[in-house]
Amino acid sequence: MKRHEDPKWVQKMILTLDHNYAMAEFLGEPGLKESDLHDLAPRLQVLDQDLAAQRQNGQLGFMALPYQDQVVKQIRQVAKPLLEWCWDVVVLGIGGSALGARALHQALRPPQHNKFPMGRRNHKPGLWVADNIDPDSFYGLLDGLDMRRTGFIVVSKSGNTAETLAQFLWAYQFLKNRLGEDTARQRFIIVTDPEKGPLRRLAAEEHLASLSVPANVGGRFSVLSAVGLLPAGLTGIEVEELLAGARFMDQRLKDAVPDSNPAYRLAALYYLFATAKHRPNLVFMPYAGALAGMAEWFCQLWAESLGKERDLAGNLVQAGSTPIRALGVTDQHSQLQLYMEGPPDKLITFLAVDKFKNDLEIPALYPDQEAFSYLGGHSLNELIRVEHQATAFNLMKADRPNMTLHLPEVNPFTIGQLIFLLEVATVAAAGLFGVNAFDQPGVEGGKQTTYGLMGRPGFDNERDEFAAAPPALEKYRIV
Amino acid sequence: MKRHEDPKWVQKMILTLDHNYAMAEFLGEPGLKESDLHDLAPRLQVLDQDLAAQRQNGQLGFMALPYQDQVVKQIRQVAKPLLEWCWDVVVLGIGGSALGARALHQALRPPQHNKFPMGRRNHKPGLWVADNIDPDSFYGLLDGLDMRRTGFIVVSKSGNTAETLAQFLWAYQFLKNRLGEDTARQRFIIVTDPEKGPLRRLAAEEHLASLSVPANVGGRFSVLSAVGLLPAGLTGIEVEELLAGARFMDQRLKDAVPDSNPAYRLAALYYLFATAKHRPNLVFMPYAGALAGMAEWFCQLWAESLGKERDLAGNLVQAGSTPIRALGVTDQHSQLQLYMEGPPDKLITFLAVDKFKNDLEIPALYPDQEAFSYLGGHSLNELIRVEHQATAFNLMKADRPNMTLHLPEVNPFTIGQLIFLLEVATVAAAGLFGVNAFDQPGVEGGKQTTYGLMGRPGFDNERDEFAAAPPALEKYRIV
Repeated sequence: MKRHEDPKWVQKMILTLDHNYAMAEFLGEPGLKESDLHDLAPRLQVLDQDLAAQRQNGQLGFMALPYQDQVVKQIRQVAKPLLEWCWDVVVLGIGGSALGARALHQALRPPQHNKFPMGRRNHKPGLWVADNIDPDSFYGLLDGLDMRRTGFIVVSKSGNTAETLAQFLWAYQFLKNRLGEDTARQRFIIVTDPEKGPLRRLAAEEHLASLSVPANVGGRFSVLSAVGLLPAGLTGIEVEELLAGARFMDQRLKDAVPDSNPAYRLAALYYLFATAKHRPNLVFMPYAGALAGMAEWFCQLWAESLGKERDLAGNLVQAGSTPIRALGVTDQHSQLQLYMEGPPDKLITFLAVDKFKNDLEIPALYPDQEAFSYLGGHSLNELIRVEHQATAFNLMKADRPNMTLHLPEVNPFTIGQLIFLLEVATVAAAGLFGVNAFDQPGVEGGKQTTYGLMGRPGFDNERDEFAAAPPALEKYRIV
Repeated sequence: MKRHEDPKWVQKMILTLDHNYAMAEFLGEPGLKESDLHDLAPRLQVLDQDLAAQRQNGQLGFMALPYQDQVVKQIRQVAKPLLEWCWDVVVLGIGGSALGARALHQALRPPQHNKFPMGRRNHKPGLWVADNIDPDSFYGLLDGLDMRRTGFIVVSKSGNTAETLAQFLWAYQFLKNRLGEDTARQRFIIVTDPEKGPLRRLAAEEHLASLSVPANVGGRFSVLSAVGLLPAGLTGIEVEELLAGARFMDQRLKDAVPDSNPAYRLAALYYLFATAKHRPNLVFMPYAGALAGMAEWFCQLWAESLGKERDLAGNLVQAGSTPIRALGVTDQHSQLQLYMEGPPDKLITFLAVDKFKNDLEIPALYPDQEAFSYLGGHSLNELIRVEHQATAFNLMKADRPNMTLHLPEVNPFTIGQLIFLLEVATVAAAGLFGVNAFDQPGVEGGKQTTYGLMGRPGFDNERDEFAAAPPALEKYRIV
């Protein structure tokens, strides 16, 4: 029996949300009243029904991902020949094609996975995510890898992403030159739409291995598809347990009444603070280095899903709140001063890990020196827990709302829960804001101007518009 | 002659600031008017005189750092015996003791420096920054290094930082156990106050090598002291050129009239948008992976210097603006949608690099496939430049103010300029906000609660206060 099939183990791995320090009982006026949440209950009730209907209709494709067991088999098939020669895997992708893979790697592989010799990582490859086209970053990354031993996963849902296609063209030619055409071809795996788009066509024509992202799943909701699972599986993450964690959270959300559904509660808190409480900045601050990538992943999910000029009825709303990723305890020595005393425009969510893998006891070395002696005999584990508590407590005392999402441990099961929880919370928040969670109309203009300036046929107007823009004034240029 | 002594080369390496897209001529009402800047000129004039007087008095210690050439010699002395055996260096430090070292490493060493074999990096060690006490991050980092070949730099200006002392105690004991006491002692270099504090005393008692941070330089302004220069110098960065860049910027700022002083202009723009224009979020977004660490460093400098509850006269102001680090082009696929369409509360500063080290031409591989063909023959260099231009232009069209700081290249000379520019801009902004740039009173409460909970003598009240706080309510805890 796998551990995630053992109810006793599962019971110990449940995420909990504690939002006491966001409430009026602790903060007075800056806090929410229980009645504020109650007042939102009817809307959450309707939302719950809407989402159930949308799910039924296949509009919420991401919610089906935890149940697509065949992906695990497909990954094994693709992985098997690759693992015979592969020391490193590079993901070519950006945004939703990159952040999930990196988040899973940071959360679920040891910090030095990529540096360990192959034996210490069970002969699994290192993972690198090339999510920028800056030539020094991109070349510099590849320059440290052995190209005879490096595989590439090219990820773009649409198959049309300029940055990813440019990286692919460069890397494909580079490998052809170095290793010959046949070998180069074996080095690439395409992950894209099952039927449509330039990458899908290319995979067929060039006979490249490929996996699919379901047609009804957009990039930023795709981490539990091959987009996130292929890199995770290749590097040795237990993807079944990850999916089991997501299914467990799905069941928990289904079982809850809307009023005690943790995804809806999160959505309600984030929505009410951004609107009624005028705190449009949402700090997301794990107290665990392993979760830094999850914070980055969530910041994309939240920003791109909710930051919308128009609501569903077409009204100008400029909706959303600004996610800000921070890291405890590190940012206590960087951003905390601002959070404590600066503009009162933030709601802070801590992620706390109850149990780490390592216990590091602080030795009692200088009993006569007061700055050292009080630390001796405690552990780093105690220190980080105490610092989180002290920070949350002092923020509360300063009337700065904060809450904590507790993970019993960081493992595939808890990370699967966390992903699914935050995805549903984001979609629910879109319902409260009244916006479409699944589009990103605001970035189209920049893409089209780029196409125009790069000479893509059909974008002459955009090129001309840019050229005809009023020139920069020298007085606003300081040399 | 070194290149930074060649006026022709220097002339090509000057940073420029273009803030056209923050102005009313391009944005209409959301933009600043030229008269807004003119109205601030008298205050900048006074500020300029104040800062000159403070500098004279030694209150602005960081401004003297670029002239302290003896640090370079001290670093060489410390480095020489170390480089005989050292493959990796770990900085134990947090906040201002960590961010500068990491920023310099990311900016000025190749992305894979730490992974290269020693020969490819001129026998310079890799650099790792341990700025968290989470036991899995800390142990996991060390677990990938050969402890016989690893040196530690322990950095704390006050010598009192709980996290850093705890890391030191653990690592020192760990090395003693593995390598014996004498060898362990040679593995540590202390960087702290020249005279005061527990670490200074310990360095003397334990006969550990040490360097000093000048007494009048605080942690977040210390990157051009041994705090940043020792790790930089050890890993092969040209620290003389870095200091020369800072001196060059210093001279440029001295030569400028306040009205065209780029540091004051930055400060004025950031201040006016945060206050008069109600845009208290300051996005800092380099279009170069190498500069991601510089953005993190600046976010600390800005947040901790300006996020203050009280002004110098003691009035409640809750001053500051919230720095948010982003990365181009990567965050075009993550945060840009929000920046384009979400709450209009942001001012965006791009950092653009005019020339990268590598030129990567995109091969023309599939001339018949339209999604690929327009890219062929262009370069990644063009693509990233065009994407920055297209993004800035479309933000401007959407009335979202933005500006661009141009670096001709990323090298020690331009980074030295950038550091000094941003430090002076931050201090000038503190003058405009009317707050103390050099304290951080808001984080004291959390430290004291931590001491109390860890049993440090003298902090019983804080422990009792925490224990006596009203308990969390179960209704706000969702399991």
